Amino acid sequence: MSARVLPGVGVGRRAVVGPVVQVREPVRPASDAVIERDGAPVPHDELPDVVGAAFATVSADLAARAERASGSMGEVLAATAQIAADPALLTGTRKELSTGTPPVAAVEKTIGGFIEMFTAMGGLMAERVTDLASVRDRVVAVLVGAPLPGVPELAEPSVVVARDLAPADTAALDLDRVLAIVTELGGPTGHTAIIAGQLGIPCLVRVTGAGDVPDGTRVLVDARAGRLVVDPDDEDVAAIRRLADAELALEEDTAPGATADGHPVDLLVNIGTAADAERAAAATDARAVAGSGLFRTEVLFLDATAAPSVAAQAAEYTAALAAFGGRKVVVRTLDAGADKPLAFATLADEENPALGVRGYRIGRVHPRLLTEQLAALGQAAAETGTQPWVMAPMIATPQEAAEFAASARAAGLTRVGVMIEVPAAALRAEAVLAEVDFVSLGTNDLAQYTMATDRLAGQLVDLLDPWQPAVLELVATTARAGRALGKPVGVCGESAGDPLMALVLTGLGVTSLSMSLGSVPAVRYALRRHTLAQCEAMAEAALSAASATQGRAAVVDLLTEEARRLLA
Amino acid sequence: MSARVLPGVGVGRRAVVGPVVQVREPVRPASDAVIERDGAPVPHDELPDVVGAAFATVSADLAARAERASGSMGEVLAATAQIAADPALLTGTRKELSTGTPPVAAVEKTIGGFIEMFTAMGGLMAERVTDLASVRDRVVAVLVGAPLPGVPELAEPSVVVARDLAPADTAALDLDRVLAIVTELGGPTGHTAIIAGQLGIPCLVRVTGAGDVPDGTRVLVDARAGRLVVDPDDEDVAAIRRLADAELALEEDTAPGATADGHPVDLLVNIGTAADAERAAAATDARAVAGSGLFRTEVLFLDATAAPSVAAQAAEYTAALAAFGGRKVVVRTLDAGADKPLAFATLADEENPALGVRGYRIGRVHPRLLTEQLAALGQAAAETGTQPWVMAPMIATPQEAAEFAASARAAGLTRVGVMIEVPAAALRAEAVLAEVDFVSLGTNDLAQYTMATDRLAGQLVDLLDPWQPAVLELVATTARAGRALGKPVGVCGESAGDPLMALVLTGLGVTSLSMSLGSVPAVRYALRRHTLAQCEAMAEAALSAASATQGRAAVVDLLTEEARRLLA
Repeated sequence: MSARVLPGVGVGRRAVVGPVVQVREPVRPASDAVIERDGAPVPHDELPDVVGAAFATVSADLAARAERASGSMGEVLAATAQIAADPALLTGTRKELSTGTPPVAAVEKTIGGFIEMFTAMGGLMAERVTDLASVRDRVVAVLVGAPLPGVPELAEPSVVVARDLAPADTAALDLDRVLAIVTELGGPTGHTAIIAGQLGIPCLVRVTGAGDVPDGTRVLVDARAGRLVVDPDDEDVAAIRRLADAELALEEDTAPGATADGHPVDLLVNIGTAADAERAAAATDARAVAGSGLFRTEVLFLDATAAPSVAAQAAEYTAALAAFGGRKVVVRTLDAGADKPLAFATLADEENPALGVRGYRIGRVHPRLLTEQLAALGQAAAETGTQPWVMAPMIATPQEAAEFAASARAAGLTRVGVMIEVPAAALRAEAVLAEVDFVSLGTNDLAQYTMATDRLAGQLVDLLDPWQPAVLELVATTARAGRALGKPVGVCGESAGDPLMALVLTGLGVTSLSMSLGSVPAVRYALRRHTLAQCEAMAEAALSAASATQGRAAVVDLLTEEARRLLA
Repeated sequence: MSARVLPGVGVGRRAVVGPVVQVREPVRPASDAVIERDGAPVPHDELPDVVGAAFATVSADLAARAERASGSMGEVLAATAQIAADPALLTGTRKELSTGTPPVAAVEKTIGGFIEMFTAMGGLMAERVTDLASVRDRVVAVLVGAPLPGVPELAEPSVVVARDLAPADTAALDLDRVLAIVTELGGPTGHTAIIAGQLGIPCLVRVTGAGDVPDGTRVLVDARAGRLVVDPDDEDVAAIRRLADAELALEEDTAPGATADGHPVDLLVNIGTAADAERAAAATDARAVAGSGLFRTEVLFLDATAAPSVAAQAAEYTAALAAFGGRKVVVRTLDAGADKPLAFATLADEENPALGVRGYRIGRVHPRLLTEQLAALGQAAAETGTQPWVMAPMIATPQEAAEFAASARAAGLTRVGVMIEVPAAALRAEAVLAEVDFVSLGTNDLAQYTMATDRLAGQLVDLLDPWQPAVLELVATTARAGRALGKPVGVCGESAGDPLMALVLTGLGVTSLSMSLGSVPAVRYALRRHTLAQCEAMAEAALSAASATQGRAAVVDLLTEEARRLLA
């Protein structure tokens, strides 16, 4: 059988080979669908038993999976199994059946009633709504003989393929057995891609036709080349293995980040929780990874039903700072908005949430969120005896930067900076930097605003390329301001983890790069193979290119022969 | 009685004094509200007569207003009066009454049924839905003894005050008797403000408390100072009169736009229809107004249920070009998107429409819309023997500019440009301009993206100031590119009509300014009182200012003494 290649957009640089496991969407049969067993419709008086068996099957399957799973995933599955076994659901459904409601409608109506009730109760009960919906979809699937929806159990290391993965789906994955993730939808800066990048799992998004590859088919996922090879031949696989060996060799190098001629560049990792910090700190030493360039604190807030207390925040920050010992940790204050809503801080519905009250601007509506967060971080600093760096997202003007710096310093913090992700802040970088100690470029949002193109608008993905010369020009302006004032300019957007882009950013004058842990080895390798002058030549080529595509190609041409083989 | 001052955001520069007329929101009584006459509930058997009288009152009132109104407004009112007199509505309502439905519910249910039916029929019938709703709200108001909702008839020149004005409300205004418009909501770049600006009517938006000023109260609306003075004293009024006299003097000057030392600046007007073109062309000569710098063509598309034919478009463009004779007319191709939806061209729901498939990008989804529009404009050019200028909105890259230029030239158009409103296009202005003959800066959207601040987000209005130095920097970059390539750089955003900003834009190197007709005299005056060198000094001051507020203040300081009295 000859190999078939489906193009996609790759996230990460690795390539893997393995069997496909499809994530099934829930079936939605007609509410009066006829239920069959052994090819014949089930007689009406046997329906109560058949429905009872379906609930029992679902509960048993979930309980078995719970037993095989580990940690919090096991707990979630066990709780869902218990809900499926709850006699109230079966009794309600049978009552509906007895009044003549057809079976699928009976299940949907009964569980739907509980969902409404739980939603109305709010709080902890509302959190069970997802589990109820999952039980409903599973019982319906068993009734009509369809495969169970959702993330399947992985019996062996597999390539997980889905139309799209919701955050909940991703959370339900047994990550130890996920070789790669492939989706038909999504974008390279979407949720799935970011999570996969952080976990170092190769990922392909926007792969049309991936959903049609049968379960068990052997595929090669090549994130670097952006292609899914269905039924790859031996040569394909051998080439991938050689590349993987070379990548492994990269990981053994733990020298501090620097160009071939010794120009230092801090290599940092992005984290979301104290647990991430512990994992990253345990896996690396202070030479190999200088710390974290982006500690996204919103994780602490997004799941909360009330604003976390200063003490709870301080505990989390203390744990993260302690994990990294003396290494640098850059804490970003809360970055939420109408697009990432907080349960406890209402914001108006906005026509364009990306252009609305988000990031630092939330302080206009809920000032205490910011002051409490800074107080908590000040406590964590005192507790650990470290000096964390702190920065605010979505700063647009020097006035906002000055205002934030005053608040942070009032909380006893000494290393205060802001994100540069609004074009205005980049254009006035020198005035902004005059107010603070450092800046960090968020290249994803900076590109979004500079190109006036939503990160969620799949159709416009060509405009949102981080290689767009206009975006690089704003990076250059910011880096120039940093050099003029002798202050650090970091990058913590996705582009920092692309080794080619890392060379360009270094050439533009960026002093630190923060990325997912898995991206560090290749970036380190790229830097060590090129001098600062070579990086500067690449920066010049990318800046003066007529388009994003031509810019990247020009940089590939300037790579050393050896680096091109491994990186291009 | 002493005067009370309510602050607001002014649109335009004029000030007027007149009595308040409040636009009433429809009353929404309980559907079983008790109907009273002479302080006592109406007995059940008299309800059919009372309801009949209410319909008759509404119809007679509308017919009388129709007779006093002129032109298309009279026709609309007469049609609505006829609907109110339609026996089907009264018969239906009485039938409902006879089954025991309470009067308000009977009116709402009966007319609601017609609304549903007409909506379902679509086309011309659907256009009557607004009239039906208006009859319903009026009959309900008469029944419960509330004032009639909607735009009141103006017996004398008045200041119209509303919570917010829908486009339909604005259309129903008897403009000859509107001295000024004041709203509690809305923004300076919203619909009402733009329409008022185009009509030269002073306007104040975001005036909290304006809705509480009683009908008939004398108020002073000062658009330039952004204040509503309730019960102004004689001195206030006298000062306003002196200013009005000075403004009138300005309007008598019809010299071509130029600085004091003769540096020419094209003064142009923004239009939306051929009728606007005829009005503007009739009111001015080619010396005083050099033509139109922005012909917004979407008006032709927004109300249409199907894409207008090439012939229909060509007729509209021909009329506009013919009206202006040989004067310059810059036609902007369709600027729609998920925020300004087209009935006949579906676009996906977008999370952030302002960052989505809008403007030129619609061509990715509906390529025929653009090619047909260019063909129609080509025909109009041939028909009139003129050479219209044509430009595309929302261009982000030189590649898009080149692509549009090729399409426009293929349609026989010779003067092809693009809007600069995406920061990336301004940053790469030289590469963009290399592909086209001219560019025009849309300062409203450019500010929106540069500041990452929605034009609709009232809370962030300080960030969206056109005086933000970062926004001016992008204007400067674009103007520099124009000078380097010897190509025209216009401005057609709201800021072109602010005389102070017009001086700064001229100093930055902008070669034409397009604004609402009413703004031209003051801009002409400002230019004629200052040399190009003075404009350049103002531009430098605004660019290097630490903030928008400080920039504007620095420019005021550089005005000549005389100009400061009139403009600052």
